[in-house]
This record gives sequence, structure tokens and C-alpha cells, in this order.
Amino acid sequence: MTDYIAPLDDMNFVLNTLVDFEHLAELTDNTDASSDLVAAILEEAGKLSSSVIAPLNRTGDLAGVQLTEQNEVVVPTGFKEAYQAYVEGGWGSLQFNPQYGGQGLPFVLAIAVQEMWHSANMAWGLCPLLSQGAVEAIAANASPVLCERFLPKMISGEWSGTMNLTEPQAGSDLAAINTKAIPESEHYRITGQKIFITWGEHPMADNIVHLVLARLPDAPAGVKGISLFLVPKFLVNADGSLGARNACKAISLEHKLGIHASPTCVMSYGDNEGAIGYLVGEENRGLACMFTMMNNARLTVGLQGVSIAERAYQQAKEYALERVQGVAIGRDKAGPIIEHPDVRRMLMTMTSLTQAARALAYTACKEVDLVEAELPDAEKQRHQRRLGLLTPLVKGWCTEIAQEVTSLAVQVHGGMGFIEETGIAQHFRDARILPIYEGTNGIQAMDLVGRKLSFDQGQAVTELLEEIDSSIAQIQPYGALTAGHIQRFSSAANALRQASQTLLNSTDKATPAALAFNYLMLSSYVVAGWQMLIAADKANNQLKLEANQPFYQAKVLSGAFFLDQLLPRYHGYFESINNGAVSTLELPIDWF
Amino acid sequence: MTDYIAPLDDMNFVLNTLVDFEHLAELTDNTDASSDLVAAILEEAGKLSSSVIAPLNRTGDLAGVQLTEQNEVVVPTGFKEAYQAYVEGGWGSLQFNPQYGGQGLPFVLAIAVQEMWHSANMAWGLCPLLSQGAVEAIAANASPVLCERFLPKMISGEWSGTMNLTEPQAGSDLAAINTKAIPESEHYRITGQKIFITWGEHPMADNIVHLVLARLPDAPAGVKGISLFLVPKFLVNADGSLGARNACKAISLEHKLGIHASPTCVMSYGDNEGAIGYLVGEENRGLACMFTMMNNARLTVGLQGVSIAERAYQQAKEYALERVQGVAIGRDKAGPIIEHPDVRRMLMTMTSLTQAARALAYTACKEVDLVEAELPDAEKQRHQRRLGLLTPLVKGWCTEIAQEVTSLAVQVHGGMGFIEETGIAQHFRDARILPIYEGTNGIQAMDLVGRKLSFDQGQAVTELLEEIDSSIAQIQPYGALTAGHIQRFSSAANALRQASQTLLNSTDKATPAALAFNYLMLSSYVVAGWQMLIAADKANNQLKLEANQPFYQAKVLSGAFFLDQLLPRYHGYFESINNGAVSTLELPIDWF
Repeated sequence: MTDYIAPLDDMNFVLNTLVDFEHLAELTDNTDASSDLVAAILEEAGKLSSSVIAPLNRTGDLAGVQLTEQNEVVVPTGFKEAYQAYVEGGWGSLQFNPQYGGQGLPFVLAIAVQEMWHSANMAWGLCPLLSQGAVEAIAANASPVLCERFLPKMISGEWSGTMNLTEPQAGSDLAAINTKAIPESEHYRITGQKIFITWGEHPMADNIVHLVLARLPDAPAGVKGISLFLVPKFLVNADGSLGARNACKAISLEHKLGIHASPTCVMSYGDNEGAIGYLVGEENRGLACMFTMMNNARLTVGLQGVSIAERAYQQAKEYALERVQGVAIGRDKAGPIIEHPDVRRMLMTMTSLTQAARALAYTACKEVDLVEAELPDAEKQRHQRRLGLLTPLVKGWCTEIAQEVTSLAVQVHGGMGFIEETGIAQHFRDARILPIYEGTNGIQAMDLVGRKLSFDQGQAVTELLEEIDSSIAQIQPYGALTAGHIQRFSSAANALRQASQTLLNSTDKATPAALAFNYLMLSSYVVAGWQMLIAADKANNQLKLEANQPFYQAKVLSGAFFLDQLLPRYHGYFESINNGAVSTLELPIDWF
Repeated sequence: MTDYIAPLDDMNFVLNTLVDFEHLAELTDNTDASSDLVAAILEEAGKLSSSVIAPLNRTGDLAGVQLTEQNEVVVPTGFKEAYQAYVEGGWGSLQFNPQYGGQGLPFVLAIAVQEMWHSANMAWGLCPLLSQGAVEAIAANASPVLCERFLPKMISGEWSGTMNLTEPQAGSDLAAINTKAIPESEHYRITGQKIFITWGEHPMADNIVHLVLARLPDAPAGVKGISLFLVPKFLVNADGSLGARNACKAISLEHKLGIHASPTCVMSYGDNEGAIGYLVGEENRGLACMFTMMNNARLTVGLQGVSIAERAYQQAKEYALERVQGVAIGRDKAGPIIEHPDVRRMLMTMTSLTQAARALAYTACKEVDLVEAELPDAEKQRHQRRLGLLTPLVKGWCTEIAQEVTSLAVQVHGGMGFIEETGIAQHFRDARILPIYEGTNGIQAMDLVGRKLSFDQGQAVTELLEEIDSSIAQIQPYGALTAGHIQRFSSAANALRQASQTLLNSTDKATPAALAFNYLMLSSYVVAGWQMLIAADKANNQLKLEANQPFYQAKVLSGAFFLDQLLPRYHGYFESINNGAVSTLELPIDWF
């Protein structure tokens, strides 16, 4: 099986060129975060991911996780040590507030680093991912006392965090939550069961901080009666030391299609008098508090799509370079299968989609930093709109392309791809959760069309298209990037403009909802194509200075490939939107 | 978990209306095979599949298969009894020659019956599938003595059959085969190892007849030096009774992503003096003999795509009807998720793709019968060309849509889809083998573009497009089928015409090869869309007679949905072909 090697060249390229990291660093009071420092950070993270975390991916999949009779979770060999190395390296603290021990670096840099954890080992990477989300929710909503008591150890990674939303009857619809919270002096008593709790119990951290959605006794029905509580596995004394074990435990683990090494727990809160929990934010405002965490978690899940696509691509590429089979067209003897045009098509599709997804994810995550940057309010609001618009694209599209890329990686392996020992099937299995969790991609599509597009009659998408128009007007054909590429991209952007208007003009609500997934895909191909076009142009600038630079030449070609072979998919989404939703919606339910 | 219920209405509709089974029955000397008889046969097969075979699907996945120290395979509980019921019902003999105990019914009817086995239990269904292919290869190529000795028991199903092609170094490239065959009196001695042998060893049949590709000592190199041998597990005496155990055995089983209940064997032939084998066909002509078997096997693997899509759709539909979550647009309280437009989109996509794949598969399989029918030679040749053209579409497209449909079935289940207990993930895992075995879909695309399209300057596709043109000229808008639908389909057919010419005009060979997969998808969407258009028109004819007929109304709507939401994908494939393959092929191998 292939080792994972962090794609540092492309990461640095995207950060420096598409994200314009140096400018971002200025705006976010990080003037010492030079591109050299960034490269050094990425290189160190790359070492940890390749040498320590990646080798545990297949063994973790085979070993899985077990729940003991004492409700403790046994994790695969090496996982705890890898987590320890992560904590000791300070990797959990990059983007967080120095007030609580964070390093105050831009979020987008942390994202680039996190791409590596998830490439190396998605099941393992979920533990830091959830912790990061919990830190964000606490930092944004909890009282100073709670922040001071919990954040430093959570930011360091000594304690991990979880999100407890789902109950059997309440998945996409959180209004149906039943878990109870009863006020008691300075805390609350939480009682109920939560399902699908990722890393809900494990021995890698000294404490686990659960963020739990629950209802107060007098809460209004529906989503307006949900509050958010911090429920630590071990209570924390005033001096910061660990106190008594709280009344929460994992009572079973799910048997899943993938991410076998990540414990997905059924959590039980409060067998008797209830688990002790602390209110985060205001009563009955829990969903809003959780959303501060969920928005970034959606970006990070999109990033996981980039990660697993990268890992699968690397492994398929290595196989295609080694496996000898058949005489390719134009060759005189049997050679590695990468010589066959159709294998080449699959590999180019994989790498081009992965690069595009990385560009989309990083440039969207940059907006998280810009929202917090030293900018005039109007500009910050503009970045907020852009972030809102791009979040469902990152979550939706990057996880959809992860399905395609991991499936192609299986296909490149031929019959060996279906054999578990090869290891490639694991990525295909692991990836399948991505379009589901953190809001299914259907939910993302609804968020995009129902909220982000519709807000202020399409202001966010209008701004985006204006920026696209003005930026492509600057791009000149050069080398492998032709006038035809630019022209065809421009047509795609126009299709997005028209489709946006079509949906905004819709007189009923069901039609845009039925077409929303097509719109999510259409807008994602356009935005990702835009970034690939800019990337090709920027790479061309380097090639004008010195022609013979394989990285930049490859970058231009993967951009051209995206525009030739992948962007054209937009036509189908566009025409589907134009064709309307009558045939989608007309079949009576009992005729299905 | 949902039981499987055979979609008899759609099967009968496709057979009666799109296949025109009664006319076919006349042409194939089956005048007693009325549509009533067909319906009765399908209904009986449906009962066996639902009540006996389908319940073993999940239990079989969990139990898997084991190899004992005596090289025997242990199959899941119930598998042997189900196979016994299949043999006793005479289900294996439908389409075969009455001379050897077959029932002489059309192949396409056997295909409709087989769709049910694979829906019920793909892992189990592979045993009859391989046996059928072996019967075809023997019947077409072996001596009368071998036919008489082996075919009756194989056709009855008492003995099963296998295909032994692959060796570790010889997968897609059979030229690299090393297995040896040495002549010895009236038989040969076979020595070597074969991998990926489906149902290579098992206790369900009294004997297993292996068809093995091997090389004679003086054979020319490459594919022109491969011969085909019949190697029975037990030798067969002149009186038909079983004799000594032959020197062939399973030495290990693969641990696979899916179809866990189907033993995928490493087979060892001839530990000492070699296994006894009998030549099938002429020496060094083994590949041609094997292809008689492989062509129909490709159709049947495409059919497996239909089958597993149907099963996954049924289960997702049941879940969507039962699972209550959220208040849908236009509703006033929480209801089943099928009320949500995006869930509806997924279900319509699943059923429409599945129906289209069934129509494509059955109408292609009809050509197998027409090639053998009482027709003038010119017409038979025309049917041979059509069959050749459609075979890669059936294998390629029906297995690709099976990926999409089984993945959507997971998605409809939300978080529960990722939990193995739900059972839906099994279909997703099982389906993943389909684009790989019996010639990867890349190989299918090469077969289509390199052989079937190019033959006689595109004669087969020209004939197809002429037939499409004349048939759509007859179709009138009615009800849910609009003039826009017909017009848009016509544009798609024109795109296929243009793309065919583009590839035929290519001056190099690598470009069509790099674009071949796009062409496979483009042509499949057009042919499948054509069948869906015809189906909608035929259903409209019924509705003109009596308006209120849910099956026909649904048929028109699923046709309209295909033309509105799925056919538009052709644009992307078409533009990709127009954009050429420069960016696919230009990256030097060492830059990947």
C-alpha cells in the first residue's frame, strides 16, 4: 500500500496564489506569518501525517473500535500515541485565540494543515475535527467562566470535544429533539439519549467536553425551544483539576460502512438524577449557538472530501505507474497502465477534481478569516455573504467529488480494487459518510437555494458573478490555456447567472427545492472552474518567466483538463433547471 | 429491512411493448410463448426470488464464505437449499437447446427471470450466471461428445460452471496467460493458477465444470496462443456418472468489498501431473471460444446493474415512505421524507434510471434472439451489428447507473444509510464490482469506439440513428409528454450523430481512446432516453383508451423525468468529446 505524501506544492500554491495569504496575514494581524513560515508549518504537519498518522489508517480500519462492559472505548493500536504527538506539536491550537493558548494564525492555514490529518486518516482526524468545532461554539457563545475553565485544555487538545445533536427521531429535523435539561442551582441536569456521536467516548484525551442540545421544561416547541449545554465527561474543579465522573456514557457503538476506527457512539446522559451540564449562550437559543460550530464544521467536512480524494488519487497513481498490463496505443510493448488513454482520463479526472476542490475549499475558508479581519463593515458583510454562499458548495461539492474520485481510484485498480487488502476500497467506504453528515448534501442544496441565493434578491451570487466577470477579463490565453477555454468558462458563468434568476423568479417554493441539488452542482462547477482558470493563469505567469517548470506546467494542464472535460457537466445541471420540476414533483406518493 | 418484490408490471411492459415479445416468439419458433405464459413464468420466478432467495441476501453478507483445510468452501446457511429449489424449478434451462434438456425459450425471457435472482441476491445469483456462460461456450464450441456428456446436467443446474481467465499478471490483458496445457492421449494435462474465480468451489452442485484458458507447449505468443479447456471438478464416466476427483482445487478466497457470500477463489490446477482437461473448440482459438461466453456474460452483468438498482430503489422508497422527519414545503406538519422535494428528486432519479436501464438491457438482449431467428441473412447481420453495438452500452451504462442508484439509496437513508444493519450499504458495496468484472467499463468503452463504432465506417450507429429518427417521427405529444421532450431528445440524438463522426474522423488513435468513456455514456443516455420516450408514448396509447391507470401514468412521468433531468447529462459528454483530448494526454507520465 502507498504511503501518503502531503501535496505541499499544491497547498503552498493555493495558499500563496489563490488565497493571497500574505495579504490575508496583514489583514488579520499576522504579519509575521510569511509564506516561508507557512511552508515550514505545512512541511512539519506533512511529516507527522505521513510518518505517524497515515500508517494507522489501514490497521485502524481492520481493528475497528470496541466498547467494553465498563462503557469504555478501545481504539486501534497507535491511535492514542498519534494523538499525543498531535497535542505535543501544538497542532490543535493554530487558529485559536491567544487568550486561551491559541496561536492566532489564520483559519485557512489551519485548514491546510487539517487537510493532511484527514488524508492520512479520516477516522482519526474526526477527533480533532469535532474538538475544533466545540472550541468554536464555546468561544463564541459561552460565559467567560466556562471559556476560561474549558478552552485552554481543549485548544491544546488535552481534552477533546463532541457535538451531540441527533436523536433517533431527530436527525435533519432538530425540532424533534427530546433530551431534557432541568435547572439546578448554577448548572442543569441533562437526561436523554443521543445517537451518531463521533468520538463520544475514547481514551485519547483526559476529558471529553460534550456539547448537547436539549430542552428546558418550559421550552417552546420546535427549534425555538432548544438550548445548548456543555457536559464534561469529568467535572472540572475551580482550580482546573478534574473532578467527579459525570453521568454520561457511551452505551453502544455503530457498525458502519466506513471510518471503522472512529467510534460512533450512542450516548446516554443521566441515568439517575441527570448529568451536570452548563448552559452555553442563552436559554432556547441553542440552535444558533450550535450553528457557529456547524458552519465551520461544514467547511471542514468539505475539506475531508479534498483529503480523501487526494489520498485515493495518490494510491491509484502509484498503482497505475507500477501495474503492467497490455500494450498501449502507440507503444510497442506492455507497459504500466498509466500509458492507456482511459486510465489517463481517470487519473486526470481525479487530480483535476481534487485540485479544484482544494482551491474551492481554501478560498472559501479564507472568508472565515476576512469576516474577522480589520476591514470596513461593508466589506466584512460582503465577506460574510460570500462565506455563506460558498459554505454549502464546499460541503456539497467537495464531498460529491470525493465519491467520484474514490470510486475512480477503485476502478483504476481493476479487480484488485474490489479486494480489501489493496486498501483502496477503504477510501471508497470511508468517503461515503461525507455527503451525509454535517447536513446532508440535500440540506446543503436547500440552504444554498432557500437562504444564500434568495437573500436580498441574490445579492451574494450577483457579487460573485461580478467578481468572476472582472477577474476573467484579465486572463489571457497562453500555452495550454486557450481562448476557447476562457470563452467556454464565460458561458458557464452566464449559465449560472441565468439559472440563479430562474430560481429567484420561481413563483412556488417546491420547484426551487426540487432543482436545488442541480443548482448546487452548477454553481460549484462554475466556482471551482473559476479557481482552476485563475490557477492556470497564475501558473502561466510563472512559465512566462521560466518555461521549464513541471509543477506550473502540470497546473496549467490540470486547469485546461477541468475546463475541457469536467466543467462541461454544468450544461446538464443548467438544462435540468431550465426544464423545471413538474416531472419531479407530479407523481403521487402512493404511485412510487 | 424491506423484502424484494419483483417489478412484474414493468418487466411485462418492457417485454410486451419495447421488446415486442409476441413477434419475437414467432420469429424464434416459440409461438406458444404468449404474453400470458410470459407473465406466468415471471410471476413464479418472482415468488422464488422474494420468498426464498432474497431473505438470504443480508444473512449471506454477514456470514460470508469460508475455505476449510480440505479446500472445501462453506457457503451461508440456506444457499444450498435455495439453489436446489432453483434446479428443481428448471430455472436454469429456460433459454437452452431442447436437445440437451433446455426449454428453448427466448434469451430475453431468461434475462427477465435472471433480473430477479440478482435483485434478490447478487452473490448467490453469480453461481447460475457463470454456469449459463459456461453452457453457452460449450454449446457453441465443444465437440458433440463433450456437449452430450456435460450440457444436460449443466443446463439442469445439477452441475455448475465457471470461467477461468485471470492470472495475477493477466487481467485485462489475456495475452499474458501462463497456465500450461500438455496433450496426453485424448485429453490434456492442465497446470497453473487462476485468480478471481467466481464460485470456483462450493457444495451447491454435484460437479463444477471449469472452463480454463491455457497455453499449449508450442503455442504462439500472445492471444493467438491461448486454448480453452473444460476441466471438471469430478471426472465424468462414459455413462455420465461421476468418477475420480480431478486435480483442481480452491486454495484461498478473497476478502472483498462486497458480494461476501460469493466465493472468489484462487484456483490451483494440477499439483502433480496436471488436471485432466478437454479441449473446447480448436487449439489456439480459445479466446474466440471464450468470447461467445463473455459477450452474453457482459449483457448479464449489465443486467445485474438493473437488478441491484431495483433492489436499492425499493428499499429506499420504503424508507422514504416510513421515515418521518421535518415539515415539507406546502405541508403543515412533519411527514414522511418522500414529501420533501429533494428526496423526491432522488427517488425519481433512482426509478427512472432503473427503468431506463431495464429497457436498454432487455431490448439489447432481444438482439441475441434475433441473431438466431428465422430471418434473411442481411437482417440477421444487422441484428448482429446492433447486438455488438449495444453490448458495451448495457455492460457499461447499466453498471454505472447502479453506482449512482445504490449511492442515492444510501443517501435517502441519511445517517442510517451508513450503518450496516440498515442493509442498504450492502447494495452499495455489492454494486461496486459491476463496473470492473467482465471487462472493465474502460474496456467496454474501447470496445465500443475501437470496434463497434469503427466497423464499416460507423454502419451500426448509422443504422441505429436512422431507426431512432424514424421512430421518434411517429411520436406525438400527449399528457405529461410534451413537444419539448421530443424536441430535446432529437437534439440529443443529433449530438450522438455528430460525436460519432468526430471520433470516426480522428486522425490518431489515442484521442478516441481518451474520449471513449464519454462516448459510451453519451450513446447510452441517447439509447436509454429513446427507449424511455417510446415507453412513454406506448403508455400514452393506453391512457388514451382509459385515462386513470396509475402504472401507465407513472410510466409517462418517469419517461418525462428522464428527458427533463437525466438526458441533459449528454451535453457534458458531448462537449467533452468536442473539446478533444489534448489536456487528457499531454501531461508527461512522470509529472503525475
